[in-house]
Amino acid sequence: MLTSPNLEFIMEAHNGLSARMVEEAGVWGSGLSISAQLGVRDSNEASWTQVLDVMEFMSDATTVPILLDADTGYGNFNNARRLVRKLEDRGIAGACIEDKLFPKTNSLHDGRAQPLADIEEFSLKIKACKDTQTDPDFCIVARVEAFIAGWGLDEALKRAEAYRNAGADAILMHSKKSDPSDIEAFMKAWNNQGPVVIVPTKYYKTPTQNFRDMGVSMVIWANHNLRASVKAIQQTTAQIFKDQSLINVENEIVSVKEIFRLQNDDELVKAEEKYLPKQ
Amino acid sequence: MLTSPNLEFIMEAHNGLSARMVEEAGVWGSGLSISAQLGVRDSNEASWTQVLDVMEFMSDATTVPILLDADTGYGNFNNARRLVRKLEDRGIAGACIEDKLFPKTNSLHDGRAQPLADIEEFSLKIKACKDTQTDPDFCIVARVEAFIAGWGLDEALKRAEAYRNAGADAILMHSKKSDPSDIEAFMKAWNNQGPVVIVPTKYYKTPTQNFRDMGVSMVIWANHNLRASVKAIQQTTAQIFKDQSLINVENEIVSVKEIFRLQNDDELVKAEEKYLPKQ
Amino acid sequence: MLTSPNLEFIMEAHNGLSARMVEEAGVWGSGLSISAQLGVRDSNEASWTQVLDVMEFMSDATTVPILLDADTGYGNFNNARRLVRKLEDRGIAGACIEDKLFPKTNSLHDGRAQPLADIEEFSLKIKACKDTQTDPDFCIVARVEAFIAGWGLDEALKRAEAYRNAGADAILMHSKKSDPSDIEAFMKAWNNQGPVVIVPTKYYKTPTQNFRDMGVSMVIWANHNLRASVKAIQQTTAQIFKDQSLINVENEIVSVKEIFRLQNDDELVKAEEKYLPKQ
Amino acid sequence: MLTSPNLEFIMEAHNGLSARMVEEAGVWGSGLSISAQLGVRDSNEASWTQVLDVMEFMSDATTVPILLDADTGYGNFNNARRLVRKLEDRGIAGACIEDKLFPKTNSLHDGRAQPLADIEEFSLKIKACKDTQTDPDFCIVARVEAFIAGWGLDEALKRAEAYRNAGADAILMHSKKSDPSDIEAFMKAWNNQGPVVIVPTKYYKTPTQNFRDMGVSMVIWANHNLRASVKAIQQTTAQIFKDQSLINVENEIVSVKEIFRLQNDDELVKAEEKYLPKQ
Ligand SMILES: [Mg+2]
Ligand SMILES: [Mg+2]
Ligand SMILES: [Mg+2]
Ligand SMILES: [Mg+2]
Repeated sequence: MLTSPNLEFIMEAHNGLSARMVEEAGVWGSGLSISAQLGVRDSNEASWTQVLDVMEFMSDATTVPILLDADTGYGNFNNARRLVRKLEDRGIAGACIEDKLFPKTNSLHDGRAQPLADIEEFSLKIKACKDTQTDPDFCIVARVEAFIAGWGLDEALKRAEAYRNAGADAILMHSKKSDPSDIEAFMKAWNNQGPVVIVPTKYYKTPTQNFRDMGVSMVIWANHNLRASVKAIQQTTAQIFKDQSLINVENEIVSVKEIFRLQNDDELVKAEEKYLPKQ
Repeated sequence: MLTSPNLEFIMEAHNGLSARMVEEAGVWGSGLSISAQLGVRDSNEASWTQVLDVMEFMSDATTVPILLDADTGYGNFNNARRLVRKLEDRGIAGACIEDKLFPKTNSLHDGRAQPLADIEEFSLKIKACKDTQTDPDFCIVARVEAFIAGWGLDEALKRAEAYRNAGADAILMHSKKSDPSDIEAFMKAWNNQGPVVIVPTKYYKTPTQNFRDMGVSMVIWANHNLRASVKAIQQTTAQIFKDQSLINVENEIVSVKEIFRLQNDDELVKAEEKYLPKQ
Repeated sequence: MLTSPNLEFIMEAHNGLSARMVEEAGVWGSGLSISAQLGVRDSNEASWTQVLDVMEFMSDATTVPILLDADTGYGNFNNARRLVRKLEDRGIAGACIEDKLFPKTNSLHDGRAQPLADIEEFSLKIKACKDTQTDPDFCIVARVEAFIAGWGLDEALKRAEAYRNAGADAILMHSKKSDPSDIEAFMKAWNNQGPVVIVPTKYYKTPTQNFRDMGVSMVIWANHNLRASVKAIQQTTAQIFKDQSLINVENEIVSVKEIFRLQNDDELVKAEEKYLPKQ
Repeated sequence: MLTSPNLEFIMEAHNGLSARMVEEAGVWGSGLSISAQLGVRDSNEASWTQVLDVMEFMSDATTVPILLDADTGYGNFNNARRLVRKLEDRGIAGACIEDKLFPKTNSLHDGRAQPLADIEEFSLKIKACKDTQTDPDFCIVARVEAFIAGWGLDEALKRAEAYRNAGADAILMHSKKSDPSDIEAFMKAWNNQGPVVIVPTKYYKTPTQNFRDMGVSMVIWANHNLRASVKAIQQTTAQIFKDQSLINVENEIVSVKEIFRLQNDDELVKAEEKYLPKQ
């Protein structure tokens, strides 16, 4: 998908169920959404193997490719390459690693320090990951946090080029401006040196055609399923407690049968016929 | 809550985040919802320690008591009592175990066999759990599946009495009829021998006052947060893919800031001021 | 190895380290040894995913094939086939499942009940596993507990034939007699219908040539590394506490350098030279 | 034990079984031994939750206090304080954290860089841990790696004093010299400012009375059970493969019954009599 001539889209999921519901395109295993659903912060409070366990359920639940938001790789090059081996075993399509320090801070926070990794150190981390993968299709996306950390175009460009040269399959250029000016400036200077991925959470008003015109390869809709489910759960819980009854909720939510369908219960019913003795 | 003179309510949650959002009353750690969010079936496909990991995140995320839907106890008396120790360590308030066989089948399925446990075997399992707990407030709720399995009132009553005598803190009487006739019949015959819990997923139209009048102690709203989030995710994903844009979704879902609030990020910001050196 | 014309041998291991030390032949992931090293009983006190985690460390640590002692498959056909998928993902070569009930009891116990599975139910479980595997080389070994449970040759033979017909790649015929008479009788009656695996823990005095003469395909040395390490730890701890000093132990145990060698630290040193920036 | 007037001893264990076998004094949950038994390197290749899982099995298996070798705390102050909460839940008595950078390198390696943490950063990490614990008896031992990293007495003393002032219950002063000169120099300069713990793996020839005379509070025998079991497994595996028989090994190792005893199977037999229906 990264090298497709069309603008591609991938959608956030945060557990096996939401991964199964994203049947189009591909899945973004969002660090923010996964940490949030677990009930912890997007600051590496969950261990990398706890994230891996979530990814395994997600991978088992869907047939579309999954790109994991792997933060910084959860440590140095050795932690990152160990992750790559584990992700390959579990059928994950790729990992996006960002040039910050472990433990990381979510990029959309206001006013918190976002110290960047040393360029050479991070480039060698990418190289270690690429040298480790055994499936030639496994992707490493290098996420540049220069704009997030308050640096300008020169730093962003220098980093993107270094990471691409180190073997990154694509560059994710992140920005938390509410307009796409960071991305526009970068895309112009980048001049098609390789696929670019963006995350328009903050500049969501920008028409998608603009991204196509700039030459962006992929857009990640990064946290909207989680945010939608929070809204739904808040409303549902409030309504039920207010009414002390299910009566006003039953028709606003999916049926239990739909849950069974998403769990693929039909396959088990058929398997029970085949593999359980008749009474 | 089980012995309160009022009718109490507890609400389903299925991960740390939803547990945090249920701030009223208590939380039901639903087996259906937890398995569904993981992307597997409510047939003991997730191991008991995978369920325990979910419960730990849930317990860490909320201050209200959590009752785990512990299926059959995941094996015999020894597996069940081992679970009790692990739940106590993680601050879970109680476990509901049901008188079916491992691996279990969800009770709301139509036309699937629901073999029941031997009454003596199940009663001794309850006794083993009660003998094991070290916190006197830990609760064992014995769930009677006699109606679900197609048996009548006599079997339901016999089992409820046996389990209560074995030490169960409360009886959960389950029914999948769309009217409350099973429950009504049972409550009359039961004659206040101890607290009774119900799950009106199918007979959701029954006014809550009727449950009060019957003498029910607790109502579980068992899967509605999960079902609400599925609806929300389906709509959100469909809308975004249709529009190839976030523009029509942004205002229908909670903000990223609200996610940060639910993750309690403020506490971390303050802690960083206190525990990180000034640059 | 199961279909080799020679008598083959596999050796017990119980964690990543012991798996790495068994460089010859193959590894037996012993249920007794794994549960014992974890500190729990061989009665399915560890969950199947906890066993799977041990297997993943073992698989990562060795290049020889690993056969997991998978007890009963940890539930019904659905649990067993789910296990097969997970073992394949982790590079395990095969699973041995036994025809007892979940939770199981170790076969070498005296005087404890060893109820057997229904033959049809267990045969269908084997079939479900074989239908599930995607790697054609993955092996299912069907372990017959008829002798262990106090039944005779007829029951053992009937079960072995049923499981072989259901698709088992080999039969493990277990016996806890101190002489090989059970095995001899079975091998004669079996008449080369397929590979047979044995576990001579109790009849260890029988010369190995006898097993060759009977036509046995594989011998499992099932728990001796664990038992050797227990002896060594008991002696070492006792000696050190007696002396209140390390002086009499240092030369009786391997060096710290040997531990580093077993951890393959040299590879990391080289990788650090390659992937860490020069200071 | 840390504040006892006598010289105390704690012994390494690396899994539930070895923890159970250390019945005297206390247990050292060695990072080297735990990583080695898992089959990975002592460089934070196992995630902190994988270490926690090992600690839970160890805690369940023993009644003596366990001090975890918690490396650097597995990240910054927030990761370290999160660990403290999880260790308390699992009944672990304390954590030893060292003033190096994540991911760490084993201290006994020759010629590898051992960069130290900033003193203020590490002191605040200790303070965060102490502020987090809810059990007043939980201990934080601050391990000073100044000698290991090639610094001298001044740096070691400065760090020890800072960490003690930050709330550390004891200082672990590490040295990899084959004589106790580092420790002697430190103990003199330290002048009884608080309990000191040492790990005489390399200076094992020093008579224990010398440590008493210097005023050391606790000695850790840090990896000898693991090293003993490696020796035993190497010998046992080699012998069995050489003989192609168990005959020369059976009497050199403990019996299967001894394994059952260590697993506390008797308790389960009695529980089965109490909690399983009579057939
Ligand atoms: Mg992220
Ligand atoms: Mg349920
Ligand atoms: Mg076994
Ligand atoms: Mg260590």
